[in-house]
Amino acid sequence: MKLRTTAFKAAYAAFAFTLVAVSAIAQSDALPSWNDTGAKKAIVDFVDRVTEMGGPDFVPVDDRIATFDNDGTLWVEQPFYTQIAFAFDRVKALAPQHPEWNTEQPFKALLENDQKTVLASGEAGIMKIIAATHTGMTTDEFAEVVGQWLATARHPQFKRPYPECVYKPMLELLAYLRGNGFKTYIVSGGGVEFMRPWTQKVYGIPPEQIIGSSVKEKFQIRNGQPALERLPDVDFIDDGPGKPVGINKFIGRKPIAAFGSSDGDQQMLEWTASGKPSLMLIVRHTDGDREYAYDRKSAVGRLDKALDEASARGWIVVDMKKDWKSIFPPANR
Amino acid sequence: MKLRTTAFKAAYAAFAFTLVAVSAIAQSDALPSWNDTGAKKAIVDFVDRVTEMGGPDFVPVDDRIATFDNDGTLWVEQPFYTQIAFAFDRVKALAPQHPEWNTEQPFKALLENDQKTVLASGEAGIMKIIAATHTGMTTDEFAEVVGQWLATARHPQFKRPYPECVYKPMLELLAYLRGNGFKTYIVSGGGVEFMRPWTQKVYGIPPEQIIGSSVKEKFQIRNGQPALERLPDVDFIDDGPGKPVGINKFIGRKPIAAFGSSDGDQQMLEWTASGKPSLMLIVRHTDGDREYAYDRKSAVGRLDKALDEASARGWIVVDMKKDWKSIFPPANR
Repeated sequence: MKLRTTAFKAAYAAFAFTLVAVSAIAQSDALPSWNDTGAKKAIVDFVDRVTEMGGPDFVPVDDRIATFDNDGTLWVEQPFYTQIAFAFDRVKALAPQHPEWNTEQPFKALLENDQKTVLASGEAGIMKIIAATHTGMTTDEFAEVVGQWLATARHPQFKRPYPECVYKPMLELLAYLRGNGFKTYIVSGGGVEFMRPWTQKVYGIPPEQIIGSSVKEKFQIRNGQPALERLPDVDFIDDGPGKPVGINKFIGRKPIAAFGSSDGDQQMLEWTASGKPSLMLIVRHTDGDREYAYDRKSAVGRLDKALDEASARGWIVVDMKKDWKSIFPPANR
Repeated sequence: MKLRTTAFKAAYAAFAFTLVAVSAIAQSDALPSWNDTGAKKAIVDFVDRVTEMGGPDFVPVDDRIATFDNDGTLWVEQPFYTQIAFAFDRVKALAPQHPEWNTEQPFKALLENDQKTVLASGEAGIMKIIAATHTGMTTDEFAEVVGQWLATARHPQFKRPYPECVYKPMLELLAYLRGNGFKTYIVSGGGVEFMRPWTQKVYGIPPEQIIGSSVKEKFQIRNGQPALERLPDVDFIDDGPGKPVGINKFIGRKPIAAFGSSDGDQQMLEWTASGKPSLMLIVRHTDGDREYAYDRKSAVGRLDKALDEASARGWIVVDMKKDWKSIFPPANR
């Protein structure tokens, strides 16, 4: 474009200046719930480097893969995982159809609100509960049940729906990365079909970008219509060393950024760190006033070995209390 | 926009006319290797309907999922699947490191080019060959081996590299669908990691949109570096009733269009047909001169039950001889 008059040049200069200013504001405003501490600076610096066309760390858009753990990283996981709350509520809802549960453990204890006995039943007991509440129906039926539960259940501490117990700074981070050409994935130990009904609406992440644990499924024709039946057999556990396996299975590329909060994310971060450039970040729960404070000794979301490795290797550790201006989005009621 | 002068209006009308004309040409030219037969008309009609904003069959972009079988649908599968040719060549390449193969079946027969005995070893024999050639290395090492083989191997009949034994009309169809907002996936019985190294370049389909059969993999630290080791255990068979399971596992949405060529695609097409609107298409190999002619009695890529169902339900059956002007892209040497 050739600019012919001084007035035109002045107008153009003003316009260009406005563009730069808007862009600068957009950049600094992309993470408004983050304090201007080291964590935010390290994130913005990384994104600037990998998106700088011609720069030494430039990464083409197709390879800008970012993977996020869910429980404890994007939403609350205390006092126990949301999916466990769902399973417990389902047992109570289904109890009238299962009189045998009045005498059979761990169902009996669960129905009597005796959580100690339920937890003492261990992995075998929890698997019984998962099988009874997550399988024996079609995928469509399960999605329906999850949707209904999420619409009515409330977190016991925060008294709001679980999809509102998500971390506002992380929602901003998801949007900021996508705005810079990243494809955002969830890589969670939670059940993939427990997450897919709501992740698009809550996180802006579509079903095909949700990786999680799964049960085996079987194709069948029911009343002339094809359906997928959920079977009481574990197909895949997407946790710990399973996370890099799941990432390779579903994505087939190594992420350049990975976000976790517990020892279950350690191998995902190690896998990501083995490529360059790469960003590894751990959300540390340090805010007992606004959320919860827990790490090395927590039964849920334990952060111990991964914290040591983060410290040794210089991964970003987010201190929720210091680094985040707010925790949750405004209540939406 | 308010048009103030007649000249302006005339110019605008001419411009609008040009746009319509260009659009019409772009539409009719999107599938130049397809004859103007019913198959092409049915495809174009479907795409017009699902992309017509406000129309009764409009489908939002996010739900425009199209799944393609690979062997026999996108590239040649005769005289045997390409991946089998790869496995046989790998046995020969690895033989010097395996003197025991000189006496152990089915390796002995394979090394003596006694294909009859190899095939007579059945599924157990083929699995031995797959384990010996596809596992016991890292995912990176396997991708390297596949890439090297594809760069040098030639199809026995067409004397060109396998990535050039792809169907030109189907490449056009992939691009046409993507141009209309579809997300294109491969859903193949072949190994997912055998396809991922080349599908982006050949089909324009990225690794995260490749669904296939897989072996179990294990995360481990090797010489201080994380790696994924390929194990000699089947993880998932993405064929027949496994295809809708794979589609749900990896995509979590039902496709609105599915493309296959054999009985192994029947359930994928049934699953797709259970949603509305939907397009189901079968490529039938009817061209013994330009490619191969086979269907109900072929050991490789048998098309029998799915052909009956296509006929009964009005699915599109492409007759390669009548419907396609050309089969392969020009040789690229």
